[in-house]
Amino acid sequence: MIHRLNEKIMELDAPVVVGLDPKLDFVPGFIQKKAFAEFGETLEGAAEAIWQFNRGIVDAVYDLIPAVKPQIAMYEQFGIPGVAAYSRTVRYCREKGLIVIGDVKRGDIGSTSAAYAKAHLGIVKVGSRTLPVFDEDFATVNPYLGSDGVKPFIDVCREQDRGIFVLVKTSNPSSGEFQDRMIDGKPLYELVGEKVDEWGRDCMDGDYSNVGAVVGATYPEMGKRLRSVMPKACILVPGYGAQGGKAEDLAPFFHADGLGAIVNSSRGIIAAWTKEPYWDRFGEENYADASRQAVIDMIEDLKRARG
Amino acid sequence: MIHRLNEKIMELDAPVVVGLDPKLDFVPGFIQKKAFAEFGETLEGAAEAIWQFNRGIVDAVYDLIPAVKPQIAMYEQFGIPGVAAYSRTVRYCREKGLIVIGDVKRGDIGSTSAAYAKAHLGIVKVGSRTLPVFDEDFATVNPYLGSDGVKPFIDVCREQDRGIFVLVKTSNPSSGEFQDRMIDGKPLYELVGEKVDEWGRDCMDGDYSNVGAVVGATYPEMGKRLRSVMPKACILVPGYGAQGGKAEDLAPFFHADGLGAIVNSSRGIIAAWTKEPYWDRFGEENYADASRQAVIDMIEDLKRARG
Repeated sequence: MIHRLNEKIMELDAPVVVGLDPKLDFVPGFIQKKAFAEFGETLEGAAEAIWQFNRGIVDAVYDLIPAVKPQIAMYEQFGIPGVAAYSRTVRYCREKGLIVIGDVKRGDIGSTSAAYAKAHLGIVKVGSRTLPVFDEDFATVNPYLGSDGVKPFIDVCREQDRGIFVLVKTSNPSSGEFQDRMIDGKPLYELVGEKVDEWGRDCMDGDYSNVGAVVGATYPEMGKRLRSVMPKACILVPGYGAQGGKAEDLAPFFHADGLGAIVNSSRGIIAAWTKEPYWDRFGEENYADASRQAVIDMIEDLKRARG
Repeated sequence: MIHRLNEKIMELDAPVVVGLDPKLDFVPGFIQKKAFAEFGETLEGAAEAIWQFNRGIVDAVYDLIPAVKPQIAMYEQFGIPGVAAYSRTVRYCREKGLIVIGDVKRGDIGSTSAAYAKAHLGIVKVGSRTLPVFDEDFATVNPYLGSDGVKPFIDVCREQDRGIFVLVKTSNPSSGEFQDRMIDGKPLYELVGEKVDEWGRDCMDGDYSNVGAVVGATYPEMGKRLRSVMPKACILVPGYGAQGGKAEDLAPFFHADGLGAIVNSSRGIIAAWTKEPYWDRFGEENYADASRQAVIDMIEDLKRARG
């Protein structure tokens, strides 16, 4: 699967993933109004609003980017209808040819991680049949429980040609509280990075491994170190834009071949219409066109930074 | 909420939580057959089977125990219908007077953790209304992202009188890979335990905090140490029974008042019918009675160990 992602990145010259994290605050009033008129101010109404919002954005940007990353928390907060909107978004994006990274940050003890892996990347057995479930291409995984929490995901990656991104160094301000603590002269995130490299060795797909890593754009120095610790891992880089990561900070995450990293922007793209310079030019009605322009601008910004 | 849990533990003299982790392998054939006859060998069929299975067990054990802990992965693997069965199970258990610990192990950066917290413990705003979502009493939380990943849960705990159990030392064999690594002379799990104590101080509810911890029964020596590091935290103890934790190992997790810990058993209770001594006595038809007997035996076993 990572090979397919890399091919799409090269084809589009865009190591970019759009984060589909549709808070209701980002959804234009006219979409909310229509959804609430049909379904009421209910979980169903909220789910309909975020689905219609997503569809507009996906239709506007799908030809520019290799991948999307829906954040399941933003859907889970609207209960069953919300999770159904997540599933519908995943299916729609895959139909449009997009690679889907399910930002689920799951991770548990062995047999439970196996259930999550089936849910998001694999197939589940029901009676005599095997069925796909949420069916994303990649999922994000939390490493706190160690190898036997991560390996069930890797088994499914091998069987189904899927991939994972393991949290190594997250983009948030307090990520250092545990992740930066020094162990035998190395920070914890580096030990996790070494494990990512080890786990990924028997899960290669072309020049890269289906076991990738999450490293925040907000920590470029650590990104540089982690790039060399995990040479075969694709790094999913959140934190660009709204969280403060700048294009010039991204160079260390890439290999010389221009691959090895994919940069996420969520708010910066899907809520572009709420901010200048997009608000004045596009307004609320044309929120999806604002997202398209924000994607074009982000791709240009990254090109300048990659040189 | 922890105060209510402690009251129920004292009233029943049973610091016991039943893990509702319904793998299809544990569901008697006659239940599966009926569900598949109605809904086919589909995700709906699987979800109906686990819901009927759960209901039978809950009806058989609800008067003996203070709490249940459904593991959401086991439901999520059956997609939307599975998540709906999770939600229905949570509602049904609360109607029966049980406290529900959602074993969701969520955790993300701030705004995303806030969405998870709303989904599982809080209320969500839709237009002019606020609505409950999955509405568990407690949720389990992964600490890898640090304070700003955990605090949004604690905010909701304060607003809604709910609680969390933060993963400190998990019960699985490779939990030590990161959790046991030494940092300034202390293992990582102890640093996380210190944070649990700190986070919990402004979230007190009676003698205990609504911020609890998960520490595996399989590591009693570490449990002893963590008991003193987090004096106000209730410890949720998985790993008893099927994972190898024994009753005599549990004493260090409790305070002298007999409170401070609640011990989970999943397979040992819900799959009791598949094993001796229950199989011979109850058989498949009476799987729920087997679960009831297994709960009675577990409560007795813990009483002996607590002295």
